[in-house]
Amino acid sequence: MISDTTGLYTDYYELTMSYGYFRKGRKDETAVFDYFFRTNPFDNGFTVFAGLRDLIEMLGHFRFSDSDLFYLKEQGFPDDFLDYLARFSFRGKIYSVEEGEVVFPHEPLLKVKGTLIEAQLIESMLLNILNFESLVATKAYRIRQSAGQRGFSEFGLRRAQGLGALMASRASCIGGADSTSNVLAARKYGIPPSGTQAHSWIQSFGSELEAFRTYAEIHGNNTILLVDTYDTLRSGIPNAILTAREMEERGTRLKGIRLDSGDLAYLSKKARKMLDDAGLNYVMIVASNQLNEHVIQSLLAEQYAPIDAFGVGTEMVSGKPDAALDGVYKLSAVGDTPRMKISENIEKLTLPGNKKLIRFFDADGYFYRDGIFLEEEDLSLEKVIHHPIHPEKSTTVSGLKYENLLQPVMQDGNVLIAEKTPARIHEYLKERIRLLPVEHQRFVRPHLYKVGISTEMLQMRSGLMQNGFSRK
Amino acid sequence: MISDTTGLYTDYYELTMSYGYFRKGRKDETAVFDYFFRTNPFDNGFTVFAGLRDLIEMLGHFRFSDSDLFYLKEQGFPDDFLDYLARFSFRGKIYSVEEGEVVFPHEPLLKVKGTLIEAQLIESMLLNILNFESLVATKAYRIRQSAGQRGFSEFGLRRAQGLGALMASRASCIGGADSTSNVLAARKYGIPPSGTQAHSWIQSFGSELEAFRTYAEIHGNNTILLVDTYDTLRSGIPNAILTAREMEERGTRLKGIRLDSGDLAYLSKKARKMLDDAGLNYVMIVASNQLNEHVIQSLLAEQYAPIDAFGVGTEMVSGKPDAALDGVYKLSAVGDTPRMKISENIEKLTLPGNKKLIRFFDADGYFYRDGIFLEEEDLSLEKVIHHPIHPEKSTTVSGLKYENLLQPVMQDGNVLIAEKTPARIHEYLKERIRLLPVEHQRFVRPHLYKVGISTEMLQMRSGLMQNGFSRK
Repeated sequence: MISDTTGLYTDYYELTMSYGYFRKGRKDETAVFDYFFRTNPFDNGFTVFAGLRDLIEMLGHFRFSDSDLFYLKEQGFPDDFLDYLARFSFRGKIYSVEEGEVVFPHEPLLKVKGTLIEAQLIESMLLNILNFESLVATKAYRIRQSAGQRGFSEFGLRRAQGLGALMASRASCIGGADSTSNVLAARKYGIPPSGTQAHSWIQSFGSELEAFRTYAEIHGNNTILLVDTYDTLRSGIPNAILTAREMEERGTRLKGIRLDSGDLAYLSKKARKMLDDAGLNYVMIVASNQLNEHVIQSLLAEQYAPIDAFGVGTEMVSGKPDAALDGVYKLSAVGDTPRMKISENIEKLTLPGNKKLIRFFDADGYFYRDGIFLEEEDLSLEKVIHHPIHPEKSTTVSGLKYENLLQPVMQDGNVLIAEKTPARIHEYLKERIRLLPVEHQRFVRPHLYKVGISTEMLQMRSGLMQNGFSRK
Repeated sequence: MISDTTGLYTDYYELTMSYGYFRKGRKDETAVFDYFFRTNPFDNGFTVFAGLRDLIEMLGHFRFSDSDLFYLKEQGFPDDFLDYLARFSFRGKIYSVEEGEVVFPHEPLLKVKGTLIEAQLIESMLLNILNFESLVATKAYRIRQSAGQRGFSEFGLRRAQGLGALMASRASCIGGADSTSNVLAARKYGIPPSGTQAHSWIQSFGSELEAFRTYAEIHGNNTILLVDTYDTLRSGIPNAILTAREMEERGTRLKGIRLDSGDLAYLSKKARKMLDDAGLNYVMIVASNQLNEHVIQSLLAEQYAPIDAFGVGTEMVSGKPDAALDGVYKLSAVGDTPRMKISENIEKLTLPGNKKLIRFFDADGYFYRDGIFLEEEDLSLEKVIHHPIHPEKSTTVSGLKYENLLQPVMQDGNVLIAEKTPARIHEYLKERIRLLPVEHQRFVRPHLYKVGISTEMLQMRSGLMQNGFSRK
């Protein structure tokens, strides 16, 4: 369980560094940090940005209780620093892209401006939340793509990574799940809860038919019968059909059956025929059991499995096979002085300075390019953006319609944006996907969307790199 | 954040089923459920059982607050059932193997005896915790194996799956990590916290040398300098050497340097030589950056990289590439009547009845076989255990020394076992590993450890299978 304060939900080095800044009299210095990732997960053509609401909520609790401070004292932190932490709350300004935004590698997706210490202390928590929810939202969107308009529920609690289950349910619904099995997540985030029965329900009765009848009596039109406890075709579906007929006599209707083992293509075709032959064409077929976007796509597009809804768990909520998004949080300025990290690897250079992220649209209104600019750049002037590694490749973006994607979301402890349900965020995602050229939406080997950097940014980076090696 | 009650940390169907049991007047019926998994993760030869303490803690909070009940009322549950839930607490009896135990597929690792409703309601939470911690503890043990006696810290918070980070830190230390970067986990579970500085510390100063000097002044002998911010060999290590010499003049000693990018074999050899040539052979080399057991093994065993300690994050705390353990929770008896699930797939048959799990030892004191027996079987009689799928393969276990691995851990709301730190649980794991024949410890393609079922269990299963298909 989590305490009411989240100040200790951080890496130890954030505290040792913060103490160092404090000790050196730097506690009122300001800084700018950027959050970005380097690789789209799942070889997808884009990433779905998610996690902002949970981050904002947890930042509101980013304080240190007396018992937190007592623990830090035991670790050797001195009293003057503990007094500082006792009064600490996050008062910085955060700019972020909207949740559900379609985003790309190397873009500054969230920018923190505040004191060096406050911006540093929140690093680990910020990365923890944004990396995970963006990972799962992206996976869930891929599953939504594969399922098309069919029903799609998140069933992952039992295999989710501990308490990460909660954020996983939220992110799954941002990506496109209609509902969740996780009741706490459903309540916390305003998601419809869903679920009917497990094998244990069936096994607990003297017979499968009795189990089905009882459930249908109690739950009426919300009944979905799990048909694979004993033998799907010889027992489960015949018993479901009997139950459905009895329900009709009482004026109720069986909502569906659920297949949870065996070959889902074969069994769903057999089940559909048995149900239709019994006049039960309204009974839907739900499938679950180790599904992912590739299995669902194959079932539907290659095998024409007559499945109406999917329950997806493990692989979605754990973001398998990637299991993590590689997002990082890098210092880009101290006061007004730009800073960067110089790496052995040119792809790991960071971009210096206080930035803005601009999305340009083509004449038809589709996303054309994203550009990373310095905050103070005037976009009404002639502008060119450059490939970040091969800057000789450039594109003019002058005169194009554009949006400034980084907007203020938190300042002085106040939240500046309205809360939205995951379903509403998913609506925003769908709007944005409609503006993304289809070649970037391809399931496998999508075309790379281009993100450039401005001429001024390029010059600043070159200048800092030349000085970098002499930093003694 | 998690509320003080965990009753809603469950799948919705646990509630719809429980309501069904309640409605049918079955609320005082008793049941037995078993927790087991089907496949060792990471192709390991065994799994490290973990999560029991967190499960017991969360079971202690498995209640429904007024606001929880209000939410359930909104979902349509009727007042008499809500009254029942308002008074609900888990009072069942739990038997479990010890945390840190070396366990194998299909073994009942935890057994719940209680009312049908209480045993049902806790299913999702139980699976969530045990599956995840056992997954990560097993991964962490593999990393401990690869690192040998070297230092090994858990650094995964930033890429962990949301709040799952907490249990991930605990499980990592059960598996063998010495410390964690995650301060909240360190406090909650009594793990040493660790960490020194990020690139942002270095970048925030006018020069790398100033950043190093300042850290060393403040943190003295606990200083580990991150040397790859600008240029590891031309700037980072020379500046670390200068800092170390200044520290010597003040009577302190640089603890180490940390490499976080580039080729760790090449850079660690160069760094070791530069440090040794400067008379700094006591300065340790710490390596981090996308490590896993295979990379560590290759660095040490193939490339003789002179690395003294590893920081391991993402792949450990997210259990990559498996991302989940496939544990399930199955009804094995209602009252005294054994129950089983019959599957299309013989490997997915469940074992019926109230069980015990016995570990037999060979004459040298090593683990020889595990056997699954009915609780009431008398082990002083002649006993044979059978292969669960090919029962004609059998082994006598009569007269062998044995242990009963399932012991009571919770009853009537009371916890029956003492709390242990992750480090102490890891000691237990090491004791048990010493008793596991080495062929099951092999990193790649380990030999299969044999788990059998008793003759009585086999007969019970056969009897139920023959009746299964006629359950109408």
